[in-house]
Amino acid sequence: MEAASTEADRIIAMEEAALARWCRGDPSGFLELSAPDVVYFDPFQERRVDGLAALSALYESLRGTISAERYELLRPLVQRAGDAAVLTFQFASYGSQALRWNCTEVYRRDPAGWRIIQTHWSFAGPPARPG
Amino acid sequence: MEAASTEADRIIAMEEAALARWCRGDPSGFLELSAPDVVYFDPFQERRVDGLAALSALYESLRGTISAERYELLRPLVQRAGDAAVLTFQFASYGSQALRWNCTEVYRRDPAGWRIIQTHWSFAGPPARPG
Repeated sequence: MEAASTEADRIIAMEEAALARWCRGDPSGFLELSAPDVVYFDPFQERRVDGLAALSALYESLRGTISAERYELLRPLVQRAGDAAVLTFQFASYGSQALRWNCTEVYRRDPAGWRIIQTHWSFAGPPARPG
Repeated sequence: MEAASTEADRIIAMEEAALARWCRGDPSGFLELSAPDVVYFDPFQERRVDGLAALSALYESLRGTISAERYELLRPLVQRAGDAAVLTFQFASYGSQALRWNCTEVYRRDPAGWRIIQTHWSFAGPPARPG
């Protein structure tokens, strides 16, 4: 494997590494990447989750519960805007059920390195209708 | 009403103005705010919509079809990262049906002013289950 050659490639590689851990039930990859002021949306939370302490509590509640045997990160795109980088992609996972997601990650260049300040996960495509 | 006093207030005011037009069936407010390289997710699109031409086609297909008698923009937050500003909020609309959404808008400071480079709309809260 060649070294990532651009900042965009590096950000995608960071995300892929965190997702690989996530899909083995380990949320620590994302926790290590998230900034103290991170905010978070997913379809299961009634409200936005604000801050690393609250996000850590949520992720720790999920530790060991997630398992995706196979997954794909589809068409990742990085838009740069100064010290911010916006990564968007779709994510398909195949575990106990097949799911397709939309994801937006906003990374910020902090003194410690690129850190996530905003995560938004949602279900992709028209909702499945009962037959 | 006082003039918006900070960049964060200005961005929230821009979003509110575009939403007010949107809720009257007019997508032009968002089209005027969106950058040429904007990307877009919502729960009805199978894939990410890439670029202003594709987003314009989508929005024009909706012109005149959306009407929300009443709506609320809940807990808007702006995170600044250099020339980017990440606006997150929930949006509750009350029209033909009541809906609650999560929204992430990423604005970038372009020569023309603040422009949206990423929009992500999704349904908020646990999905309704058939009784």
